[in-house]
Amino acid sequence: MPLLESTAKGVYVIAPTPFHPNGRVDEASTDRMTEFFLEAGADGMTVLGVMGEAPKLDADESLALVRRIVQRAGKAGVIVGVTAPGFAAMRWLARNSMEAGAAGVMIAPPSSLRTDDQVVAYFRQAAEAIGDDIPFVLQDYPQLFQVQMPAAVIRRIVADCPSCVMLKAEDWPGLEKISALRAAQASGEMRPLSILCGNGGLFLEFEMERGADGAMTGYAFPDMLVDLVRLSAAGEREAAHDLFDAHLPLIRYEQQPGVGLAVRKHVLKRRGVIASDAQRKPGSGLTPQAVAEVEYLLSRVGRADPRARLMPLA
Amino acid sequence: MPLLESTAKGVYVIAPTPFHPNGRVDEASTDRMTEFFLEAGADGMTVLGVMGEAPKLDADESLALVRRIVQRAGKAGVIVGVTAPGFAAMRWLARNSMEAGAAGVMIAPPSSLRTDDQVVAYFRQAAEAIGDDIPFVLQDYPQLFQVQMPAAVIRRIVADCPSCVMLKAEDWPGLEKISALRAAQASGEMRPLSILCGNGGLFLEFEMERGADGAMTGYAFPDMLVDLVRLSAAGEREAAHDLFDAHLPLIRYEQQPGVGLAVRKHVLKRRGVIASDAQRKPGSGLTPQAVAEVEYLLSRVGRADPRARLMPLA
Amino acid sequence: MPLLESTAKGVYVIAPTPFHPNGRVDEASTDRMTEFFLEAGADGMTVLGVMGEAPKLDADESLALVRRIVQRAGKAGVIVGVTAPGFAAMRWLARNSMEAGAAGVMIAPPSSLRTDDQVVAYFRQAAEAIGDDIPFVLQDYPQLFQVQMPAAVIRRIVADCPSCVMLKAEDWPGLEKISALRAAQASGEMRPLSILCGNGGLFLEFEMERGADGAMTGYAFPDMLVDLVRLSAAGEREAAHDLFDAHLPLIRYEQQPGVGLAVRKHVLKRRGVIASDAQRKPGSGLTPQAVAEVEYLLSRVGRADPRARLMPLA
Amino acid sequence: MPLLESTAKGVYVIAPTPFHPNGRVDEASTDRMTEFFLEAGADGMTVLGVMGEAPKLDADESLALVRRIVQRAGKAGVIVGVTAPGFAAMRWLARNSMEAGAAGVMIAPPSSLRTDDQVVAYFRQAAEAIGDDIPFVLQDYPQLFQVQMPAAVIRRIVADCPSCVMLKAEDWPGLEKISALRAAQASGEMRPLSILCGNGGLFLEFEMERGADGAMTGYAFPDMLVDLVRLSAAGEREAAHDLFDAHLPLIRYEQQPGVGLAVRKHVLKRRGVIASDAQRKPGSGLTPQAVAEVEYLLSRVGRADPRARLMPLA
Repeated sequence: MPLLESTAKGVYVIAPTPFHPNGRVDEASTDRMTEFFLEAGADGMTVLGVMGEAPKLDADESLALVRRIVQRAGKAGVIVGVTAPGFAAMRWLARNSMEAGAAGVMIAPPSSLRTDDQVVAYFRQAAEAIGDDIPFVLQDYPQLFQVQMPAAVIRRIVADCPSCVMLKAEDWPGLEKISALRAAQASGEMRPLSILCGNGGLFLEFEMERGADGAMTGYAFPDMLVDLVRLSAAGEREAAHDLFDAHLPLIRYEQQPGVGLAVRKHVLKRRGVIASDAQRKPGSGLTPQAVAEVEYLLSRVGRADPRARLMPLA
Repeated sequence: MPLLESTAKGVYVIAPTPFHPNGRVDEASTDRMTEFFLEAGADGMTVLGVMGEAPKLDADESLALVRRIVQRAGKAGVIVGVTAPGFAAMRWLARNSMEAGAAGVMIAPPSSLRTDDQVVAYFRQAAEAIGDDIPFVLQDYPQLFQVQMPAAVIRRIVADCPSCVMLKAEDWPGLEKISALRAAQASGEMRPLSILCGNGGLFLEFEMERGADGAMTGYAFPDMLVDLVRLSAAGEREAAHDLFDAHLPLIRYEQQPGVGLAVRKHVLKRRGVIASDAQRKPGSGLTPQAVAEVEYLLSRVGRADPRARLMPLA
Repeated sequence: MPLLESTAKGVYVIAPTPFHPNGRVDEASTDRMTEFFLEAGADGMTVLGVMGEAPKLDADESLALVRRIVQRAGKAGVIVGVTAPGFAAMRWLARNSMEAGAAGVMIAPPSSLRTDDQVVAYFRQAAEAIGDDIPFVLQDYPQLFQVQMPAAVIRRIVADCPSCVMLKAEDWPGLEKISALRAAQASGEMRPLSILCGNGGLFLEFEMERGADGAMTGYAFPDMLVDLVRLSAAGEREAAHDLFDAHLPLIRYEQQPGVGLAVRKHVLKRRGVIASDAQRKPGSGLTPQAVAEVEYLLSRVGRADPRARLMPLA
Repeated sequence: MPLLESTAKGVYVIAPTPFHPNGRVDEASTDRMTEFFLEAGADGMTVLGVMGEAPKLDADESLALVRRIVQRAGKAGVIVGVTAPGFAAMRWLARNSMEAGAAGVMIAPPSSLRTDDQVVAYFRQAAEAIGDDIPFVLQDYPQLFQVQMPAAVIRRIVADCPSCVMLKAEDWPGLEKISALRAAQASGEMRPLSILCGNGGLFLEFEMERGADGAMTGYAFPDMLVDLVRLSAAGEREAAHDLFDAHLPLIRYEQQPGVGLAVRKHVLKRRGVIASDAQRKPGSGLTPQAVAEVEYLLSRVGRADPRARLMPLA
């Protein structure tokens, strides 16, 4: 399997973990989902991320899921979230995932970190703990992890950790940070770094214009993300914004903390991708009113973007 | 002046504080802004809120601003943010504002509160400190203040504090909370409470459908907020969503923490409402790239909603 | 093995995990430490707690450590910290530990919990996840976990979870909470609950007088804790305070966050209990100045409490 | 009045604000307290600090208190806590206090600051806002304010702000930070800075040995603090520790968050210094059990340190 590199571009879909209503991992849905993402044009997938309900799987289940998806994903790169409360578990999952064929891993900082030096030291130790032969994605998501990494700190991490090849950019606001990092790269102060954007895609059209390489998010229409990234890369600004704006009401609805995963699983189920929208405990569900709102948004998105079919790509 | 009541409906605009580039309060812009909000159809205004740079004004400046706006606002109600680190300053501003003709005050909880009982006790003490003849708005904004108030806690506050007449709803997600409060009201478990929505209006179209009475936010097109609330109240669902969706890209852009006020002041300046977009220190500004993005969004909003003129209402 | 019950009393020592300087678990030191704690008079031990560097062990290492200590501990009860970011890992370690002969498990709340209902729901789900045949200790340590549980919330947890048999009390301040819980128990509003005190023992002499059943902490002189609990239970107030005060300067020194474990391992090494004071990364160490300060404190403690020998009990 | 300088040494007592039971400021007790602190040997006082219930006073009350204490304090320096949610109020109180004869002001960071740059920028802006002719004390109290300032950040603040003359050191743990700052000073990397220690004095005996210049805390036996600082400065190590250890049980009891002020006011009242231990709302009180515990500690302290009389110094 090719390793993740700092030249990576495009769309890496954050994959949810499909469960049966009884809580067991749904392997058939996992396969179908993997194929759906690839047919939608994704360049890769990220599994066991925040949206993947990773902490609800035990160690063996986690690795089994990685193996299954890697096998199905073929030449598309699979990134594995290995964030853990300690380096022992992080190393275990990272090394076993790479052996299974993953392209790289993703690491988020523990919420106890505060000062610049603490953040930089943490990633240096993490990179050493998993082994610096494993390329990793730095996840910058202050709203969730409560750790702030200004551009200067990210540059220090990139300088200290040769195995850091990608940034998952989901600071909020984050546009100026992308510009600052690209400027540092252009001036030679920072080596090249792939920047894929998360945050549910809520600012993706502008993030691309600021120099991002693509998206890493789990919006339930990855086909749209692929189109948007392509249009934006091709400089078709109006078309990119038109497409984005057609989906924004739903993207925004998905961005509600604690609700987003339920919306995504609901839409993926409606699109025929997964069999059940079940979450393992402690999970969240949609009230009937929320389901009706999502359905209403789907109908409006369908009208504004006729390509946003609910059926999986043929 | 009529006091704020739990029957309040419509749009209360969160007013920024206009400054001259040298940092002094811009009184002419303050007057023009007040008139603009009223001509846009606002039912009231909220001054010295989070977006009003309240902590940057000293006590005398705060009260002078309240007096000026109350005088200009005529029969429209003016709500004054009196959140303070202690009850002495809170009481001082609350009582002086009411004497000046304000309709009520708004109180947010200090970030140190954690447990249900702490939150309830705080508002009971605050209501007592300012005097229970002053109607107050409970500001529920966990993302900023880091205090979580589930519906059950809000109900306890409403039960304990007869002078609590309004909720500024900006929990995120907040749709289910509005439904829960309305259900409690319908069943008689909670007395009537006005619910106006903040959060920059990011979910306003659905919040209205869940039973909100209107908006309390500073989106720089209050004219749109007025139309949306009217359409929604009239049951014109498609028209309401069409209007909302036309503005959503800009509403979303404004919702970037630390950037929102700069965007709002920029747009209000572009609309001819205020003379300068200056903020007092520590303030934030827009980079040239951000200004270009806002201008691009304005041009797209203008195309999608032809009534969204940049000129103030005639 | 007898299961942990709400009648438990005495001293449960929080056990550090002994490592070789190269980072491997030191099994010989583990055995010697277990024996030392038992000879010191401990009624039980708690392994894989905050001070046990639990997150730095992978799943297999954790279980191996539990098995080793349980075997050595004989009839003394071993409590296993099973706090984890998800219920799958928590259940795995809990069930395997009980099978290995543990007396019970300990669970701390994730720092994301805020409202009363969230806290209560979490423990109900956790108890269900591990199985309600496993007795568990509720760890109340707001300073570290940032979750506040007032007495009323603890009472709700105790009412909801029949398998909750013990409170590890380390709120700070915590004296009034112990009194409130004992009053609730005396009036029949709460069923009996064992209360053992943590916080490094910093308030142990008064906690005993407020009704605590003993200590669960890792102070490096567990022999003193045993004596103190005995004196206090026997009503020998002056002797208890004299003994406590002799150790307080060192107890207080140990209570420095991030330093405490290094101090404890240093003292246990000096007492001949463990071979090395090594910590796994990310660990903390003592500067030469800190070592000198600890040595000075040891010499003063030794003078004030002649029984506080540095040699292990014969 | 002489301005506060980086050569300041000794004990600056954190002064509570005495209230009558009806909530009014007790001026007679304020005078008596000021005299008591001076007679105890204090080199200065700090008013309107965290322990001074500052947010509960309105602007006029704050300034009146400063004026009263400055007048009484004579040549002893008075430092005024001017921490505020905005620079306008901070500047107002700072400039008016200096005009009234204060020696300097103290500033703590707002809890929203996270990154190194944010912290440094805040103090630069604050120093500019109050005017760089006003010497200020940097308050480093992460446990309360949730802002972490490593030694490197403090050095940047000292370098950026010529008017920063003193550090109130109350990080926890903080011993290594004092050593690091003194090393930076010794090597010429940092200009001289006065370091006075807070944290209720809980580590004062070692802080002095690490190079601190004295104490800035409100322990109700300032006479002991004065003696301890003198003994330590004179190199009488054993005597210093003996004195400290005699008081440690009470010092530790005072360090309970939310209880400390009640203990201090109780002891100051028992010593005849203030007439009432009343706090303004929201305040905390001592339960009868807590009062009994404090009294018991006082009796033990009195036995161990015969000079710790309950009567004010004659």
